[in-house]
Amino acid sequence: MIIEIAKKAKAASRALAHLSTAEKNHALLHIAKRMNERREELLAANKLDLDAARLLVESGRMAESLYSRLKLDDSKLDGILSGIEQVARMEDPTARVTLATELDEGLMLYRVTCPVGVVGIIFESRPDALVQIASLCLKSGNAVLLKGGSEAEQTNRALFGIIHAAATERGVPRDAMALLESREDVMALLRAEAFVDLIVPRGSNSLVRFIQENTNIPVLGHAEGICHIYIDRRSELAKAIEIVLDAKIDYPAACNAVETLLVHSAIAREFLPAVADALQSRGVELRCDPRSIEFVAGAKQAIEEDWSTEYCDLILSIKVVDSIEEAIAHINSYGSRHTDAIITEDGEAWEKFFAEVDSAGVYRNASTRFADGFRYGFGAELGISTAKLHPRGPVGLEGLVTYKYKLTGSGHTAAMYAKGGRRFTHKRIDG
Amino acid sequence: MIIEIAKKAKAASRALAHLSTAEKNHALLHIAKRMNERREELLAANKLDLDAARLLVESGRMAESLYSRLKLDDSKLDGILSGIEQVARMEDPTARVTLATELDEGLMLYRVTCPVGVVGIIFESRPDALVQIASLCLKSGNAVLLKGGSEAEQTNRALFGIIHAAATERGVPRDAMALLESREDVMALLRAEAFVDLIVPRGSNSLVRFIQENTNIPVLGHAEGICHIYIDRRSELAKAIEIVLDAKIDYPAACNAVETLLVHSAIAREFLPAVADALQSRGVELRCDPRSIEFVAGAKQAIEEDWSTEYCDLILSIKVVDSIEEAIAHINSYGSRHTDAIITEDGEAWEKFFAEVDSAGVYRNASTRFADGFRYGFGAELGISTAKLHPRGPVGLEGLVTYKYKLTGSGHTAAMYAKGGRRFTHKRIDG
Repeated sequence: MIIEIAKKAKAASRALAHLSTAEKNHALLHIAKRMNERREELLAANKLDLDAARLLVESGRMAESLYSRLKLDDSKLDGILSGIEQVARMEDPTARVTLATELDEGLMLYRVTCPVGVVGIIFESRPDALVQIASLCLKSGNAVLLKGGSEAEQTNRALFGIIHAAATERGVPRDAMALLESREDVMALLRAEAFVDLIVPRGSNSLVRFIQENTNIPVLGHAEGICHIYIDRRSELAKAIEIVLDAKIDYPAACNAVETLLVHSAIAREFLPAVADALQSRGVELRCDPRSIEFVAGAKQAIEEDWSTEYCDLILSIKVVDSIEEAIAHINSYGSRHTDAIITEDGEAWEKFFAEVDSAGVYRNASTRFADGFRYGFGAELGISTAKLHPRGPVGLEGLVTYKYKLTGSGHTAAMYAKGGRRFTHKRIDG
Repeated sequence: MIIEIAKKAKAASRALAHLSTAEKNHALLHIAKRMNERREELLAANKLDLDAARLLVESGRMAESLYSRLKLDDSKLDGILSGIEQVARMEDPTARVTLATELDEGLMLYRVTCPVGVVGIIFESRPDALVQIASLCLKSGNAVLLKGGSEAEQTNRALFGIIHAAATERGVPRDAMALLESREDVMALLRAEAFVDLIVPRGSNSLVRFIQENTNIPVLGHAEGICHIYIDRRSELAKAIEIVLDAKIDYPAACNAVETLLVHSAIAREFLPAVADALQSRGVELRCDPRSIEFVAGAKQAIEEDWSTEYCDLILSIKVVDSIEEAIAHINSYGSRHTDAIITEDGEAWEKFFAEVDSAGVYRNASTRFADGFRYGFGAELGISTAKLHPRGPVGLEGLVTYKYKLTGSGHTAAMYAKGGRRFTHKRIDG
């Protein structure tokens, strides 16, 4: 029963919260060591998944790209092991004091970061995801319930077996990690709000949306990435073209790829033919509104639906606007609060754009593709959150911690302040 | 239509986000000035509500305490005006840079605090709540939709009229504040997730629970406050008694009052008769488990339900435990993750308690009554959140802001790093 597993994980998470940074790092390095010793076993398990997947590819029921993501080999394993070592070297996100105030003599208040508790992760086929997630949860002191894709069942089981054994050898509570295997397990997980504190779905938009709609547990993630680039009237057009090309073609399936280009009418005549030519020569299909289509040979007409579509493909919609206000209104109404950019040399336009665009990332003269935990310098990335409150944007290890207020006194009562004549000092203490 | 009001508030929130700190402070002081000029009008409106309320009190349909909370007079108005001036003096929580990283030469990443957007507040009769909330929202740059109790309808309308007129005189967008008046408005507000970013219920537990269960918008608040004090075997008993008395009798209806006392069996015989005597002599009813009742004359037997009840009254449940582990398990299973305290002179016990108790506030040798925004030094308090993620615990002005990532480049593309040989520097910039 998942509810029992989750309940035990909750209990184990309390013991896990005690482990020192050194203990967690030793456990991580031990996991890497054991995985290195047991490479053969991992590759053999992966071969079983690959054989099953090959049949699906041949009968057209699995994409070749999915097959290659599923495949484990020595060089991928090297990457996975160095990933674990990297997590071991990262700063421990827990037990940091983010606020310290002396409320009165001998009455000290601290805000201290701590693990979230139990994290449920639902991910798709890439076996490296399991290892990365398990490592991040261990480093941040969280118990973790892992549910991988069925295509990677044998690989995930082998990986989990090694990780779990190695972690428990180094003092991690047995119940602090569990592997879920069926779809029914996922539904039970989504309902286990008494024991699960955070759900992290890593997969398709439809998976994320399904999970968001079917649980009361906080979900870290985003369903869609509808990113915009707005070319302001005062922009350097050559620079603008480079940025648009990068944002569209560097990796069109990424959530931070651009989907809609907004162009100020004052520069549309000069800019649009040039950018269209550059995009089309690289195979990008353009879908234009009635005003932009005048300047773009060979474009399709955009329909209303285009403005709210994440293409995940070499397709870009284009619209002419008469003002920055119109651009901002379009972004706030059709966007997904992920990442949006303005190309401008005008400082005031940039200030306005930054203040009014309601997205996790608001950029000037840079590609939307920078919205990524690694590029932001967060180390590993758990996901990108389009929620309005914390965590927002690309989320690294910090997304797996919350905080508690710690108050220490020596018999202090509230009545001393209300009636006893004592006064709060509220003195901020630094670092 | 509420949806139209919320949509306009969303648009107005974008203009509001532009106001400088000085502009917001001038608007706040202008509101205080206008309210001072129009005292007569406010008192006359309040008189209408009081007359209606008096009839309810006389026919037994309203508590006398509610009536006195509803009443406005010159001295209460003085307090309200000085509250507004205090919010004007508080630090602006927006536009703070909480992270600054040079990703590469000329490519700068900042995490900057910004208003949440549109906040919906549902509060009960106290008219000062309307003024405090409107002030906090203005200071933090948020549009606000206010729904007060029907008992205070005339007073709220008069207060809102003055605040709204004064704010717009000082450049606050007209649609950035609205007063909702009917119960149907509340239901529509809870469904306006496209335009409302945060709901703050201020009222009874049942109001909060109803709202949490009927909206997908994040809710800042807590339904219950079931706080515990655990008396460890190594505690100073005189100190422990003072703290328990304070936490129970200082203000029994508060969410941070203690509901359950857990006592280590090694000191039960010595401690329980003394604490019971002190509590009972102040009119506190005690409900004891089978082990504690032995030491407490005149106690009732506790039933299972007692462990999960917030009495809001002079009632305390008591249980004997054999270990700190048992105390922690009880708190984590019956508590409401609000605030829990240990009384101990043992540093190791305290460390364990702090690490394992899963509450927003974890205290040592101090009364649970300190869980309060004012006492924490946050200035005004919006509410206390028992959510696991941010905001957690007592929430001040900080609870009304979120953040965006701001990235500025000069034509930077992601491909430059993948293929062009450029490398991220990821240099943290201080301050």
